[in-house]
Amino acid sequence: MKKDITLIVLAGGEGKRLWPLTTNKALFPFFGLPLFTHTIADARVAKMIIVTNPVNDEIIRSYKFPIPTSTVIQKEPKGMADGLLSCREAIAHSPIVVMSVDDAIDSELLSHVISTDTFGAIPGLKRSGPFGYIKFKGDRPIGIVEKPKEGDEPSPYINIVCHYISDGSELISEIEKINSSADDVYEKALTNLMARHEFAFVPYEGVFAPLKYPWQVLSVMNALFDGLEYHKGKNVTIKKNVIIEGAVYIEDNVKIYENTKIVGPCYIGKNTIIGNNSIIRESHIGADSVIGFNCDVTRSYIGDNCWLHMNYVGDSVLEKNISMGGGAKLANLRLDDGEIATLVQDKKISTGRNKLGAMIGAGARVGVNASIMPGVKIGANSFVGSGIVLSADLPEDSFCLLDSKMVIKKNTRPAPAKREDFRKHI
Amino acid sequence: MKKDITLIVLAGGEGKRLWPLTTNKALFPFFGLPLFTHTIADARVAKMIIVTNPVNDEIIRSYKFPIPTSTVIQKEPKGMADGLLSCREAIAHSPIVVMSVDDAIDSELLSHVISTDTFGAIPGLKRSGPFGYIKFKGDRPIGIVEKPKEGDEPSPYINIVCHYISDGSELISEIEKINSSADDVYEKALTNLMARHEFAFVPYEGVFAPLKYPWQVLSVMNALFDGLEYHKGKNVTIKKNVIIEGAVYIEDNVKIYENTKIVGPCYIGKNTIIGNNSIIRESHIGADSVIGFNCDVTRSYIGDNCWLHMNYVGDSVLEKNISMGGGAKLANLRLDDGEIATLVQDKKISTGRNKLGAMIGAGARVGVNASIMPGVKIGANSFVGSGIVLSADLPEDSFCLLDSKMVIKKNTRPAPAKREDFRKHI
Amino acid sequence: MKKDITLIVLAGGEGKRLWPLTTNKALFPFFGLPLFTHTIADARVAKMIIVTNPVNDEIIRSYKFPIPTSTVIQKEPKGMADGLLSCREAIAHSPIVVMSVDDAIDSELLSHVISTDTFGAIPGLKRSGPFGYIKFKGDRPIGIVEKPKEGDEPSPYINIVCHYISDGSELISEIEKINSSADDVYEKALTNLMARHEFAFVPYEGVFAPLKYPWQVLSVMNALFDGLEYHKGKNVTIKKNVIIEGAVYIEDNVKIYENTKIVGPCYIGKNTIIGNNSIIRESHIGADSVIGFNCDVTRSYIGDNCWLHMNYVGDSVLEKNISMGGGAKLANLRLDDGEIATLVQDKKISTGRNKLGAMIGAGARVGVNASIMPGVKIGANSFVGSGIVLSADLPEDSFCLLDSKMVIKKNTRPAPAKREDFRKHI
Repeated sequence: MKKDITLIVLAGGEGKRLWPLTTNKALFPFFGLPLFTHTIADARVAKMIIVTNPVNDEIIRSYKFPIPTSTVIQKEPKGMADGLLSCREAIAHSPIVVMSVDDAIDSELLSHVISTDTFGAIPGLKRSGPFGYIKFKGDRPIGIVEKPKEGDEPSPYINIVCHYISDGSELISEIEKINSSADDVYEKALTNLMARHEFAFVPYEGVFAPLKYPWQVLSVMNALFDGLEYHKGKNVTIKKNVIIEGAVYIEDNVKIYENTKIVGPCYIGKNTIIGNNSIIRESHIGADSVIGFNCDVTRSYIGDNCWLHMNYVGDSVLEKNISMGGGAKLANLRLDDGEIATLVQDKKISTGRNKLGAMIGAGARVGVNASIMPGVKIGANSFVGSGIVLSADLPEDSFCLLDSKMVIKKNTRPAPAKREDFRKHI
Repeated sequence: MKKDITLIVLAGGEGKRLWPLTTNKALFPFFGLPLFTHTIADARVAKMIIVTNPVNDEIIRSYKFPIPTSTVIQKEPKGMADGLLSCREAIAHSPIVVMSVDDAIDSELLSHVISTDTFGAIPGLKRSGPFGYIKFKGDRPIGIVEKPKEGDEPSPYINIVCHYISDGSELISEIEKINSSADDVYEKALTNLMARHEFAFVPYEGVFAPLKYPWQVLSVMNALFDGLEYHKGKNVTIKKNVIIEGAVYIEDNVKIYENTKIVGPCYIGKNTIIGNNSIIRESHIGADSVIGFNCDVTRSYIGDNCWLHMNYVGDSVLEKNISMGGGAKLANLRLDDGEIATLVQDKKISTGRNKLGAMIGAGARVGVNASIMPGVKIGANSFVGSGIVLSADLPEDSFCLLDSKMVIKKNTRPAPAKREDFRKHI
Repeated sequence: MKKDITLIVLAGGEGKRLWPLTTNKALFPFFGLPLFTHTIADARVAKMIIVTNPVNDEIIRSYKFPIPTSTVIQKEPKGMADGLLSCREAIAHSPIVVMSVDDAIDSELLSHVISTDTFGAIPGLKRSGPFGYIKFKGDRPIGIVEKPKEGDEPSPYINIVCHYISDGSELISEIEKINSSADDVYEKALTNLMARHEFAFVPYEGVFAPLKYPWQVLSVMNALFDGLEYHKGKNVTIKKNVIIEGAVYIEDNVKIYENTKIVGPCYIGKNTIIGNNSIIRESHIGADSVIGFNCDVTRSYIGDNCWLHMNYVGDSVLEKNISMGGGAKLANLRLDDGEIATLVQDKKISTGRNKLGAMIGAGARVGVNASIMPGVKIGANSFVGSGIVLSADLPEDSFCLLDSKMVIKKNTRPAPAKREDFRKHI
């Protein structure tokens, strides 16, 4: 192990595209803790500097980390390069690893990157999509090409932000030379550094799930499920005829009622109650939640303090403090089974998913028998009235009520008093 | 025990505020019998006179009572004082106890009241609200103040109508002196009597639940649950994997199907069928009812001959002969968790409850997937069409149909014939 | 057994009244095979000629029959007489039995009919309705009266088309003499034959269910359930706490998940999955279907490749390749419990049923929380949007969307962050 490596975690960004989720992506909790705490869990480095923002700083400093940690506040969310400049002094002449806060990657990747003996090291993963791609000269990585057109990729490998640089001040210096406010200053600076110094390429085949859009909470969740094992915390009550299959991680004080099935991988946060006759599959349920009678929660993320009752929650993201009335359904499949698109900052983009339910911000309420269409997003603290079929996004702090028309006539066909003949069918 | 006490049960009232419930409050059945039959169950008195009305008289006379009983018809519902005048002859010079028909109280209270040795006795309970309050001089009760303004209460004790008077004719005489048709003649006469004779105050800490408004059926039910014990009648069928917890009183010929849980206190009337995969909690279910597959009945009163199927019935009152289609939900909680108000005789009043579902009169029908909002009342013999979100009271004998608009287009995206890829997720 | 009997199965008709079902009534599958294959299962005849139509011929020829079989194509659906003319050469001078393709009858009836020793034989069943009635002279059947007015029936016996005629060419000759394109040429020819030759009357008391209207799929299903026995195929998975009662026929590779109850008679086709916490009663479920979590399927026909999830399907017919979103309900009972009428070829006719759900053509989709009213028919490849209350038939290839109005206001009553007080109720 190299001595005195400083791990720089860039956690100063905003994450506007995560709407309707309100928790900053640096803090969005999985298994009760922010994503990056899982990624750095095995980091054998000397210290960690977390570049935060004015809002997150105090919260992040309240966590306990396994490494000596300090935070630096990035005043405005001006990108990775600006984030690194914020901690210029701290990293001068020190070997560093730069990590992004919003990618789920295997916690061993950091060890592999720092075990190289070149000036720097960059990992790459075969993946297609709107990523930065690594350019090679022979076996040697010589730069990053940001979001090339399809077919123009310089290699099949995308850049994973877990970069080792043996002298942090050289990176700072390249950033300062570029002196721009563009989005890709960090990648350009790294490319310039690669031109002058030898970098090792670290091929990576593990999990990789970025957290940029709200539905990616599901892929991050799945990435973190990797390696999960069965665990039963203290004071857990499991009633009669409960079936638990596979890797289900049950925190302390959880109660699971009769005739319920939980199929792993699943995480059940502390104090949570899982009601009778329900099914939970491949899902994350936060702390202090109540999944009441007769729910189906499948491939979904549910945060803390959520209350369900006779609901279907499929391929959906419920941030926290959300309640759904009986019979409300989060539909996760179009009638034609087609791919689900959704609006992000007023632009319709494809989610790449055929199965996707709703994404719901903190504090929302959904009335009984409401139907939320696939890919719809509900803003924080919004109420969706009973019986509504919601097929478009709902802004935060909204109260959406069904304006239905009814015809009330005189009832001329009274109901029979008895149905004895029907009882024989039971 | 004093000799020859006559218990006067005042059961001649109308109970208009109980709308949409149609059964007179003197007859409204709990555990198969009117409320007052539970209250007088342990009464050690010489005889009982029930002041009825022209409609109830025959029904009440058909019951068997543990005490020699006669009825007197009060021709019009003119209040307690008028009710007592109806049986003037029967009670002359006799020691009497006057009881109201519409309060759930402990059956032992009557014994306590008649074991005093003063001219009269009046019990009182610490409670706040729009009640009559007892006025004291030192320890001695000297009168009743009807519905004082908040802060003006003469004591913390409300008047419980279970009054002992050792000479009934004196009470009659005071009533005649007042000679008014006001609401509070009885209380005034009693106050006058207290001025002339010594009354004992009987402090009471037991259950007390008046039956004036339809939602109070629930508090009366809870009062009567006090002391309930597990009972399994004759010819009861309990199928595999049925869980019964606590005080559940199961009458004869009940059938309970698989994977159902019943959490006491609960009452299940005779011949009733509880379907598969349901949950019943703290509820009253009458006779000849069918709680079909997959229902959640919680803290609710359901009368005789009701049919449910895939429903949620929470904190609700279903009088009798009511059917609900699959998926119909009686919502019991506002989206903001706020207190639930409702109209009573065109006046909006608060129910004092944050959890309250629907109140439904006899003979009503609710269509599939209908949603009834918290605190809504449905009149007798009314039909609520499928899919309706009912947020206002519905008069009796109504047929309420959804008038929804649909757009019918050519379907240009046929569904795929097979979904083999989805089966792997199951 | 008489030698060389040729069984003529008339399968060339159209079956327009079966709309919205698209499968020809000659092919409509029960237990994986067309209706008539069950009826002729025990036929001890020398050979079988199936009169098909241009569309069905290839499919029918692909089946394996227990009797040497050939097909003859009837070019246009011009009725039974025309169908027989199509195979004129094949049946000349041969003893024949003429059977209709669309009646469920006991497979033993054919044996009884051919064991007579008269020129011909005709079976009859006591039944009232719009059928053909047998006319008798003494004990001898002498003709068929098609659809007489009520009260004008010549006998209580209706004509069951399972006719033995010892010389087929005589029937052909009578048909040719009539030389008409009317509907009842076959019956008239048979009547003429009966005038000239002795026919035996074969009284019949077994099952009889014609397949003319879509709801009759249910009565045919019930007829075929007669005599069904419990069967468990190969590689069947039955999970914990599954209850199977009565005659349930389970084909190979079926999976049944926990806490589900199946009450026979039921048929479960191969590869089908029955989800958790469901109930299936007296129903037919085809192959490759998924009855997901928490369904109630009662007295219904479900074909191949159907997907359900949290649905109620009561007294309904789902042809094949149909999916229903969570919470969609097929209502099977009017609010007044009255008899259910439906349109057939624009004419309202009574179905004779008080319990009847929906009839749905192949390829349809029903959105979450949709409600289909009793007796409604949905055309093939049509989509019913979420939340719709469908109370009229929907043509094929339609996309029906709810056009609901919502009011979106500012939410001025944010939800409380915690509900600690509610947890005590759980």
